[in-house]
Amino acid sequence: MSAPAIASSPLDRDVIRARVESALHEFLDSKAESAAARRLPADVVHSVRSFLFAGGRRLRSQFCTLGWYAGGGTGLPDEVVRAAAAMELFHAALLMHDDVIDDRDTRGDRPTVHRVVADRNHGVRGGQAAERLGARAAIVIGDLGLVWAQELLHTSGLSPDRIHVATTVLDAMRTEVGYGRYLELVTAGRPTCDLEQAWEIVRYSCAASMVEGPLRLGAVLADAGPAVLHALSAYAHPLGEAARLQDELSDVFGDARSGRTPTLRDLRDGRHTVLLVLALRHTTPAQRDRLTDFIANPRPTEGDAALCREILDTTARFEVERMIRDRRLQIHQVLTEAHFPSQAAAELDSIAEAILNREAPQR
Amino acid sequence: MSAPAIASSPLDRDVIRARVESALHEFLDSKAESAAARRLPADVVHSVRSFLFAGGRRLRSQFCTLGWYAGGGTGLPDEVVRAAAAMELFHAALLMHDDVIDDRDTRGDRPTVHRVVADRNHGVRGGQAAERLGARAAIVIGDLGLVWAQELLHTSGLSPDRIHVATTVLDAMRTEVGYGRYLELVTAGRPTCDLEQAWEIVRYSCAASMVEGPLRLGAVLADAGPAVLHALSAYAHPLGEAARLQDELSDVFGDARSGRTPTLRDLRDGRHTVLLVLALRHTTPAQRDRLTDFIANPRPTEGDAALCREILDTTARFEVERMIRDRRLQIHQVLTEAHFPSQAAAELDSIAEAILNREAPQR
Repeated sequence: MSAPAIASSPLDRDVIRARVESALHEFLDSKAESAAARRLPADVVHSVRSFLFAGGRRLRSQFCTLGWYAGGGTGLPDEVVRAAAAMELFHAALLMHDDVIDDRDTRGDRPTVHRVVADRNHGVRGGQAAERLGARAAIVIGDLGLVWAQELLHTSGLSPDRIHVATTVLDAMRTEVGYGRYLELVTAGRPTCDLEQAWEIVRYSCAASMVEGPLRLGAVLADAGPAVLHALSAYAHPLGEAARLQDELSDVFGDARSGRTPTLRDLRDGRHTVLLVLALRHTTPAQRDRLTDFIANPRPTEGDAALCREILDTTARFEVERMIRDRRLQIHQVLTEAHFPSQAAAELDSIAEAILNREAPQR
Repeated sequence: MSAPAIASSPLDRDVIRARVESALHEFLDSKAESAAARRLPADVVHSVRSFLFAGGRRLRSQFCTLGWYAGGGTGLPDEVVRAAAAMELFHAALLMHDDVIDDRDTRGDRPTVHRVVADRNHGVRGGQAAERLGARAAIVIGDLGLVWAQELLHTSGLSPDRIHVATTVLDAMRTEVGYGRYLELVTAGRPTCDLEQAWEIVRYSCAASMVEGPLRLGAVLADAGPAVLHALSAYAHPLGEAARLQDELSDVFGDARSGRTPTLRDLRDGRHTVLLVLALRHTTPAQRDRLTDFIANPRPTEGDAALCREILDTTARFEVERMIRDRRLQIHQVLTEAHFPSQAAAELDSIAEAILNREAPQR
C-alpha cells in the first residue's frame, strides 16, 4: 500500500481498498477452511481468490463507501466494508461468466478462470475436453461466486433490517445488470442505427452496476434520505455513461494515459456501441458497408482494422467526445448543487476525475 | 388441478403446488410488467417462465412446505409459499446453467433455454453463431434467475429477521450444491474406485438441494428447534441419496413405473456415480476395460451399450438396490422416532414413497 498525501483522510482510497481486500481475504479464508474440513477441493476458493486479486481498481467498493459517507455515515464500520466487499465479489462472479461468454483468455494481464482450469487439464484430458471443462467449471465457480457475494452481505454483521433495505437496492441493480448483459449479447453482431438501445446497454450493463448501485447501497446503509439518493443517481448516471464511452473510444483509438492499446475488440465482436451507431448514422453507405463487413469478417486484417479506425475517427468520435464533455459538466454541476458532506463531495469529484482521466486500467 | 381424495388436507400436494405456481407466475408477471415499462426485451421473462413451467414435480417447494408443517407451522401463509417458490426458481436457474454445461437439448420433453434461443436465431445468424448465442444467453438468463430467486425470497413478505434466519440455511445449501456440481464436473470422464467421492457428489449435488435444504428452510421459518432440524436432516439424507441412486439405476436399466427409457447418459458422460464405482470395484479387469473404453468412446454403438449394461447388471446393481432398501428403512425409522406432527409425518412418508416408487418423472 502506498502512502498518499491524503493518508489522514477517512476517505483515503488506498486505506479503503486495503480494508475491502482484507474483508475479501477473510471471507475466502473461512470458505477455504470449511472446504478443507470437509475434504472438498481447494481449487474453487483458489480460483475465486486469484481472479479477485488479479487486479482492478475496486471501483464498486470505493463507490459503496463513498455512498456511505455521502449519505451521512461517519467512520467506516467493518460491516459496511464487508457490504462493499460483497459488491466486488458479485462483480467478479459475473466477470467469470462474461469471460466464458466472450471467450476471453486474459483479463488485465492474468488468465481468466476458464483458461486456468483448461490449462491445468490439458495434460490429463484431450485439448478439446480440457477447454470444455474450463468453460463448464467457470460457470459453476461463477455461480458459487454469486451465492457467496450474497452470503458475504448476509454475514457482514449488518442488522437484518439494514440488510433488507440494502437488498432492495441490490435487487434493482442486479436485474438491470442482467438485462444489460442480455441486450449486449442479443444485439452483438447485428449493428443497427438504434441509438436508444446502445444507450440502454451503456446504462444497464455498466453504469448501473459500477457507480449507481454501489453508491446507493452505501447510502441506504447510512440511512440516507431520498434527496441524497436522488443526487447520487444524478451523479452516477453521467459518470457511468462517460466511463463507458471512454472505454468505447480507447477500444478503437487506444489510450496513452492508461497505456491501453487499441484492439478494436468491440468492433470485432460487433458490439452495439454508441460509437458504432453514430458512425453508422453519419457516414457514407460505402463506409457503413466497410464497418459491417469488418464485423462479419471472422479474420479481418490489420489493414481492415486501420480503415475502420479511420471511419470512426470522424463525426462519430467527435460526437462521443462531446458526450463525454457534457457528462463531465453534469457531474460537476450535481456536485456543486448537491448537499453532500464536503469531504464526500471532494472525493466523489476526485474519483470521477480519476476514472475519466483513466489514471489506471479499469476492469 | 386434479381433485385428489385428500383434498381437504392442508398438506394436499396438489393444492400446495398450485399455490407455489401461482406465486411464481405472480412474481414473473411483475418482472414482465417492469420490463415492458422500460422497453426491455420480453424474452428473458418468457424464457424463465417456459422453463419453469415445462414440468417437474416441484419437490423443493413441497419439501419446504413440509418442513414448515414438520416444524410446527400451521396454515400455510403466502409468505412461506413464496419462499418455497424461490427454491423452485433457484433450482431452475441452476438447471439452465447445467443444461449448457451438459449440452442438453431437452429437459423432460421440452427444449432447454439455450436450445430455444439458438433455434430462434438460426435463421438470422449462422448456425454456429446461433448455437453460441444460445449458450451465452442461457448463462445470462440463469444468472438473472439466481438473482430473482433471491429477490422472490426477499420480497416474500417475511420479516427481515425471518429472512435472515432462512438465508443462513440457504447459504449452507447453496455452497454444498456448488461444490457438488464442481465435483461432478471435475470427476467426469475419469472414473476411479473412490466410493467416498461418489457419495459426496450424491450428497452435495442432489440430496442437499432437493430434500434437506428446502425442508430446513421451511422448518426455520416455523421457528423449529434443533431437535426438529436434526430429525429432518436424518430423514433428508437417506431420501436424497436413495432418490439419486434410483436415478443412477434407471439411467442404465430404465424404469417401467416412470416410463423412463435407459439412455446410459451417465456412463456416456463418464459420471462418477456410485453404480459405476461399485462396478469398477467388483468386476474383472476385462470388464473394467470395457466400461472405461465406453466412457472414452465418443460414438459407442448400441452393442457397446448393451455389453456395459450387462456388466453393471451384476454385483453393482444388487449393491445399489440394497443401498436403496437400507435407506428406505432408515427413512421409516426416522419417521417413527421423530416427533413430527402426525399429518406432517404422514405426508413426509407419502412423498418419500412417491419419489422412491417413481410415481412421476423427476427433473
